[in-house]
Amino acid sequence: MEIIGIVGGVGPYAGLDLARNIFNETIAGKDQDHLPVTIMSIPEKIEDRTEFLLGNTTTNPAYAVSKIILQLENAGCTVIGIPCNTMHSSEIFNVIQAELKKAGSQIRLINMIDEVILFISHFYPEINKIAVLSTTGTHKTGVYYNKLKAAGFDPIIHSDELQEEIHKAVYDEQFGIKAYSKNPSKKAKNILVNGISSFKELGAEGVILGCTEIPYALPYKFLQHIPLLNPTQILGRSLIYHSYPEKLVKKL
Amino acid sequence: MEIIGIVGGVGPYAGLDLARNIFNETIAGKDQDHLPVTIMSIPEKIEDRTEFLLGNTTTNPAYAVSKIILQLENAGCTVIGIPCNTMHSSEIFNVIQAELKKAGSQIRLINMIDEVILFISHFYPEINKIAVLSTTGTHKTGVYYNKLKAAGFDPIIHSDELQEEIHKAVYDEQFGIKAYSKNPSKKAKNILVNGISSFKELGAEGVILGCTEIPYALPYKFLQHIPLLNPTQILGRSLIYHSYPEKLVKKL
Repeated sequence: MEIIGIVGGVGPYAGLDLARNIFNETIAGKDQDHLPVTIMSIPEKIEDRTEFLLGNTTTNPAYAVSKIILQLENAGCTVIGIPCNTMHSSEIFNVIQAELKKAGSQIRLINMIDEVILFISHFYPEINKIAVLSTTGTHKTGVYYNKLKAAGFDPIIHSDELQEEIHKAVYDEQFGIKAYSKNPSKKAKNILVNGISSFKELGAEGVILGCTEIPYALPYKFLQHIPLLNPTQILGRSLIYHSYPEKLVKKL
Repeated sequence: MEIIGIVGGVGPYAGLDLARNIFNETIAGKDQDHLPVTIMSIPEKIEDRTEFLLGNTTTNPAYAVSKIILQLENAGCTVIGIPCNTMHSSEIFNVIQAELKKAGSQIRLINMIDEVILFISHFYPEINKIAVLSTTGTHKTGVYYNKLKAAGFDPIIHSDELQEEIHKAVYDEQFGIKAYSKNPSKKAKNILVNGISSFKELGAEGVILGCTEIPYALPYKFLQHIPLLNPTQILGRSLIYHSYPEKLVKKL
């Protein structure tokens, strides 16, 4: 039996959002038709990933995350998703993979970034120039940039000033989305919308919402006629595809 | 270390909704401040509880649920919530408790119904006449009725015709909330709002939203000046109280 495992807690609401996306994208008419999903949301022990990538702490969150994945495997999970873009930077994700290998894990860990790029290739073949709204950790380590390049896309480069603003829209303790997930502030929304305008001026044809908190503030499929790509939704679909492909809703 | 365990899948969205309520009711400024929560959503093996209570199937869902609770305990959980009112009917809940005891479980299983009644006693001491919007399974087995009586409240009795309508608002495959959790139908909402009007005519001073799907259609604290009591929110608060009481948001 396949069970989908979710590494929750990064952040806590993102774990639930991934599960909700799985349920939304499943062909189901009643409770019993839904897929088996286990979420472990143990945020206390997972160091902030942007702080690690910026060198402000030396503890790689990969160790705590790989322990959670092994616990999920122990609880019967066969396929895993981590709904956090920053966790997919190679300095973290490669260490998670190495730790799992060392422990003899058989689990299939899905790479959200690869799934997003594959999704764009399938569903938006006409798109070439792609921008990414993300935290500074995801940005500085080129999580999307390198893989977009490798897949033949033309990733948009934006200024450090704009990046700093976008990061604040997520993390600022006064107005950031993380502080007000229930009800994102007008200020955070405006920064993100202005970011998309700037991306458009730079030629962007698609924008990846490259932090799992951003769709709470921008719950749209299009903005300024540009498709907004939601990695949590795409990862949800991929987890279904990799466990119960016959249950995946075909139409987007 | 305390870990909160959630029996998900009954229904799948209710499991997420309970976790969201826990996060919303926790004093937290960043990801790491949030409480450890594990959700197992394995709906396939859990028989429909109303069908069992109405005698349409002989498989008591208590056996599948107690197995999931033991798996949660095995994964480190110390306190458990089941976000489904119907599962709390004595024909099911007592069997879950007996199965856990038989297996030597040490876990603390919180009874959502008891917590709701305790909550009303604390926060609405002036209320006496209470009505319950619920499925027919919850209604027929007197899940709330008996405990409200025992606690000195005056539970409102409504007609079978009205009950049938309310059940349809949840379960109908054409317009019920279960079929359209993402976007409850106008028809389902109207049935529930009319139900509350009828309850008010019968003297109700408070209404328990006694099915975890109902708050998706009625996300209000008051309707027609009557407080709506949301058991998922109350259970979320109780699970925090029974694990990390210092982290519970005090103001409602």
